[in-house]
Amino acid sequence: MASNNAGMEQLAIGIDIGGTGTKFGIVDREGNVLFSSEMSTRGFDTIEAFIEELHKKVQPLIDNVGGTGRIRGIGVGAPNGNFYTGTIEYAPNLPWKGIIPLAKLIQDEFKLPVVLTNDANAAALGEMKYGAAKDLNDFIMITLGTGVGSGIVANGNLIYGHDGFAGELGHVIVIPDGRYHEGTGKKGSLESYASATGVRNTAIELLENSDTPSLLRDIPKNELDSKKVYDAAMAGDQLAKDIFDYTGKILGLALANFVMFSSPSAIVLFGGLTKAGDLILKPTREHMEANLIQVFQNKVKILVSHLKESDAAILGASALAWDVQ
Amino acid sequence: MASNNAGMEQLAIGIDIGGTGTKFGIVDREGNVLFSSEMSTRGFDTIEAFIEELHKKVQPLIDNVGGTGRIRGIGVGAPNGNFYTGTIEYAPNLPWKGIIPLAKLIQDEFKLPVVLTNDANAAALGEMKYGAAKDLNDFIMITLGTGVGSGIVANGNLIYGHDGFAGELGHVIVIPDGRYHEGTGKKGSLESYASATGVRNTAIELLENSDTPSLLRDIPKNELDSKKVYDAAMAGDQLAKDIFDYTGKILGLALANFVMFSSPSAIVLFGGLTKAGDLILKPTREHMEANLIQVFQNKVKILVSHLKESDAAILGASALAWDVQ
Repeated sequence: MASNNAGMEQLAIGIDIGGTGTKFGIVDREGNVLFSSEMSTRGFDTIEAFIEELHKKVQPLIDNVGGTGRIRGIGVGAPNGNFYTGTIEYAPNLPWKGIIPLAKLIQDEFKLPVVLTNDANAAALGEMKYGAAKDLNDFIMITLGTGVGSGIVANGNLIYGHDGFAGELGHVIVIPDGRYHEGTGKKGSLESYASATGVRNTAIELLENSDTPSLLRDIPKNELDSKKVYDAAMAGDQLAKDIFDYTGKILGLALANFVMFSSPSAIVLFGGLTKAGDLILKPTREHMEANLIQVFQNKVKILVSHLKESDAAILGASALAWDVQ
Repeated sequence: MASNNAGMEQLAIGIDIGGTGTKFGIVDREGNVLFSSEMSTRGFDTIEAFIEELHKKVQPLIDNVGGTGRIRGIGVGAPNGNFYTGTIEYAPNLPWKGIIPLAKLIQDEFKLPVVLTNDANAAALGEMKYGAAKDLNDFIMITLGTGVGSGIVANGNLIYGHDGFAGELGHVIVIPDGRYHEGTGKKGSLESYASATGVRNTAIELLENSDTPSLLRDIPKNELDSKKVYDAAMAGDQLAKDIFDYTGKILGLALANFVMFSSPSAIVLFGGLTKAGDLILKPTREHMEANLIQVFQNKVKILVSHLKESDAAILGASALAWDVQ
């Protein structure tokens, strides 16, 4: 088959497996997503059934570009994905429990080499190859979504740690004995404040602990979310602004600590919360600088990913595939 | 000169420049310190005068091993030493202010290649080549002395960061709005608690904030130090034990955060405070585990450096010299 495509540019497949949906696409070396689609992650009795369906959905895309011979490999990003073992391990947001040999299962099904890593590491690779971190050797990627994920690049390489689990910065304790985090049972982690869920919980706390008038008081508690807090802040609501200030204060403190660890030239932020723009970025920058010792001050850029959100996950995952052996 | 020594094993010079004293020695590839000595860092009008005197003191050692031809290079560890630039920058504990081109000055004086890094990075290299971290690819070195320093190794390499200043873990904020740190003006940094100075300050606080009887009440406040707290704890003094428990609680929390950053297989502790043994190690381990999310629990060893303290600084600095170009 490869001979039919002699001289044609090689392509990579990127697959991003999320808690609800799975996105996939075919990407060229310049980061163009040539074809892409998605499917539900839910509703399969077994992981094997999911992968069989995934193959059925991806094959037409492969056929579009001339067949398997043009595909160099498959990169997969998934929560708790382990680069070293190719397994996903105890992923709380995925339907499959325990340790799943995901890379091997996909490799056997597709007959193509597969590399796996966690979703935030994949995002970091995507930014390094195609996005805001292009040509940076030292940066930290922070994804601010429902949860907080991270990928850390030092000396031009992702830090995987001895076991493949490095970069769980969402679970770093920022406020000792602070807010309880349901998923982990720990108190005061970054994720419990600087995620969409965290912003919602801060809103509830500030509303309960004050009598300050606010547009947010008109919204039923179970409908409060970070988008509504954003809308209120943009409409001039002071309490809504305070919510972002507070979030930025804690995020900035955490970023300062990360900077003093690996001294990156930039921190790249990605995900829903970044849509709040300066409402969150301004206090984040201020509090990062305020907590840095002199040698690090006014050196570290805080960048917001400019990759198209629909493409970013696929791009990031596909970036893994170029290095397969 | 090199021809006189053809076939003889190459050697390295290690120089550790501290706030009060400078140690230096000649080291072989197996980590044997063949000859060593020391001199004061203080009392020189200029950095040039210091380096001239250093050369006078080191030359007899070089002559002992057969001359400069056997020396592959010089590794230097110094506070705020920058691997990339070869400079020391604004080192609060050294007599020379501003930015000092230390590597170049030593190189010009000795006519040998010189590599510089900060003292804690040098310590990490020493442990990796000759000590507790031998053959480890991912570990964090923490030096618990008058201050708290660190060196971080990931994927088998020291993390220098984009500017050479990575690994300032002593300045990470562990307790927001916590104890004031004189040197930096920041509040709640690891160093303000988990250094010898920090232990002393915790002792003063606990003595002032309680009426608990304690052997430490017999010691004038200005004579209190971590050694006296240790002696009291070993004599069964509960308040002295509480001081180490508190120190270990904060150190353990900080270590958990570091683990969730780079997922090392081990943390190597070095320096005066480690002499307190289980008094500090036990609470440190407990609180590290308590703050780790499940995927990291019961995986990370906390090791204490077993290098001879008199040799460790020289060994660490010399380890740099093997990689000179």
